[in-house]
Amino acid sequence: MRSVSVIGIGETKFGKLADRSLRSLLQEAGEKAIADAGVEKTMIQALYMANFNAQYLCYQGHMGPLASEVLGLGTIPTLRTEGACASGSLAFRQAMIGIASGMYDVVLVGGVEKMTHRKTEEITTGIASAADVEFEANLGATFPSLFAMIANRYAYEYGNPREAMTMCAVQNHENGLLNPDAQMRKKITAKDVEAGFPIAYPLTVYDCSLVTDGAAFVVLAASDIAEKISKKRAIEVIGSGHAGDTMTLASKKSLTTLAATVNAAKEAYAMAGVKPTDISMAEVHDCFTITQILNIEDLGFAEKGKGPKAVLEGKTALTGSIPINTSGGLKAKGHPIGATGISQIYEIVTQLRGDAGERQVKNAKIGLTHNLGGSAATCVVNIFRGR
Amino acid sequence: MRSVSVIGIGETKFGKLADRSLRSLLQEAGEKAIADAGVEKTMIQALYMANFNAQYLCYQGHMGPLASEVLGLGTIPTLRTEGACASGSLAFRQAMIGIASGMYDVVLVGGVEKMTHRKTEEITTGIASAADVEFEANLGATFPSLFAMIANRYAYEYGNPREAMTMCAVQNHENGLLNPDAQMRKKITAKDVEAGFPIAYPLTVYDCSLVTDGAAFVVLAASDIAEKISKKRAIEVIGSGHAGDTMTLASKKSLTTLAATVNAAKEAYAMAGVKPTDISMAEVHDCFTITQILNIEDLGFAEKGKGPKAVLEGKTALTGSIPINTSGGLKAKGHPIGATGISQIYEIVTQLRGDAGERQVKNAKIGLTHNLGGSAATCVVNIFRGR
Repeated sequence: MRSVSVIGIGETKFGKLADRSLRSLLQEAGEKAIADAGVEKTMIQALYMANFNAQYLCYQGHMGPLASEVLGLGTIPTLRTEGACASGSLAFRQAMIGIASGMYDVVLVGGVEKMTHRKTEEITTGIASAADVEFEANLGATFPSLFAMIANRYAYEYGNPREAMTMCAVQNHENGLLNPDAQMRKKITAKDVEAGFPIAYPLTVYDCSLVTDGAAFVVLAASDIAEKISKKRAIEVIGSGHAGDTMTLASKKSLTTLAATVNAAKEAYAMAGVKPTDISMAEVHDCFTITQILNIEDLGFAEKGKGPKAVLEGKTALTGSIPINTSGGLKAKGHPIGATGISQIYEIVTQLRGDAGERQVKNAKIGLTHNLGGSAATCVVNIFRGR
Repeated sequence: MRSVSVIGIGETKFGKLADRSLRSLLQEAGEKAIADAGVEKTMIQALYMANFNAQYLCYQGHMGPLASEVLGLGTIPTLRTEGACASGSLAFRQAMIGIASGMYDVVLVGGVEKMTHRKTEEITTGIASAADVEFEANLGATFPSLFAMIANRYAYEYGNPREAMTMCAVQNHENGLLNPDAQMRKKITAKDVEAGFPIAYPLTVYDCSLVTDGAAFVVLAASDIAEKISKKRAIEVIGSGHAGDTMTLASKKSLTTLAATVNAAKEAYAMAGVKPTDISMAEVHDCFTITQILNIEDLGFAEKGKGPKAVLEGKTALTGSIPINTSGGLKAKGHPIGATGISQIYEIVTQLRGDAGERQVKNAKIGLTHNLGGSAATCVVNIFRGR
């Protein structure tokens, strides 16, 4: 398979963007990515578009041609991928396979979500479509309760992760303060987190990611032509893995080792020929703080059960040995669901280019993105190398 | 790129299946396809799942792991593709590229839709998400009105296609009578069609495809291993094309030559190295009878403006030179949106295997599927050859 590189990135500011249409978000982020790559629009051969649930939240499906029309991309082929909160990474991976297969040379990949205009109960219903509606959501098991069960089971098996969960929230907010695109640029304390409004025990409101509007795009090219067509430093995709698991939480073999993450990571590390200790920094899917801890373990950055210790020792802080969610993560940068996986790649490419400003990781060489869908029923892991 | 073949097919009966859950539809069609291929479930490496709008109609997204869990496929990677009514063909094409790239050897591809349990106005809103909601649907331009404008424009440019539109409906119903899976197994007359309840002039209710529940699956394998792993005759995918066009009808260069169809067909014919006259039979996207006429022309089965003549001369009938929609098409077999593109492939594979019974096309050697999304904003064309 041909090697693939990222040659352009663009994203909107994330947040409550009540005055922005889907079209406006798509246009801003898409134009930014194309301009960043410095390619002519006529060179783009396909558009892979991620969106989670505009069909329910905005009554709008068929996001491919909507984006293509607003970006003036003519009659190129488009499609939408959806895999709950992993939708963005799925679009990226399919686009990568499209180039790897020889079908395309240059493709655009985007993600978008617009959620904040709906009422809280409607947003909850929309997000719950990522769970099993018959066996979970309709019985009241929406995502905070599902991940609360995971946190409680983790406490039972490995000891209470409360203090480390709190530290994840505090660190992600510290990083978000340094990211101009982040939704919540606000320092929080351990006391804020633990005294936060209770959502589903043990999760407080500060353990939960945000409801966010936003869009993110990247331009991909076959590595053999990347530097000819773009002035930007090409960031190579050296590994990619994609795995699944049962839809329902009740059917999983383990609640504290997420099989989808373990299997996707195994595939990505093998393809890249690297180990967890080779990773300079990672964006991991912190839909809830407990998920960030599981991810740190399942990706091999800490032994199983030792994630909390790694977090509390500062290993995952911006200055630690494996900085996690330098962008602020879903917790502070925000979680515009369809855009999230693409925005993770935006951050890693920014770091590998050395363009991350105040949040720049020193000697950033290899970066990893980890994107989960639902109760870890879908996972995509990608590994990138700067040149 | 590696050659890819279809080694298994399965579908539910199409219709108003009020007592069936999404899970039940997925299970029946998926198990049938896997059994038909005769492969062990452990050989299936990925699931590409198409669904148009269960997120609005059933509150259920994340169809990949839902299907994977119900079929007992373990932790394989899954994703959902959506491109309005072309969702099924998009899943098929991405799966094909996945094998062609060398990433996978054996994959399952499915499509499902459950619509009939909702009220008519809700179904209309759900389907309208395939159009531009801001600029079309919210202004009252839902699909029957959009395709009525196409029909009126066609009449202006090439003469009134009424008689041929009627013949398309009558022929598709005749074919549907011979398909045990069809929703509407009922003979209709020209008088029925033209005196039908008016929907949007000139379209009557008999010019419109059906609202349908159903699921369809196929198993794909790399052609070089297909006959080793399956006892069934492998049907090779010799060509595939995918193109887009503007989302809005108003922005299209032509309403009577659908650019997405023309470009997807061009790509598919070139890849297959065949001409329209080499095609034994085709399943084309008859969301409305006028669309069937445009498709016949845009796929090269008749000259532009001569589609009506070809239909009226019987060329597209079951016994004609290029039988169209031998399954009954979206008009009589039904249109369970996410499943439609896969079901078209089900029909072509059935014909190429010689298993189509009363509706068998004689000397069926090469078959074509044509699947549109929205107002022809997405199109996928596939070409298959029996061995």
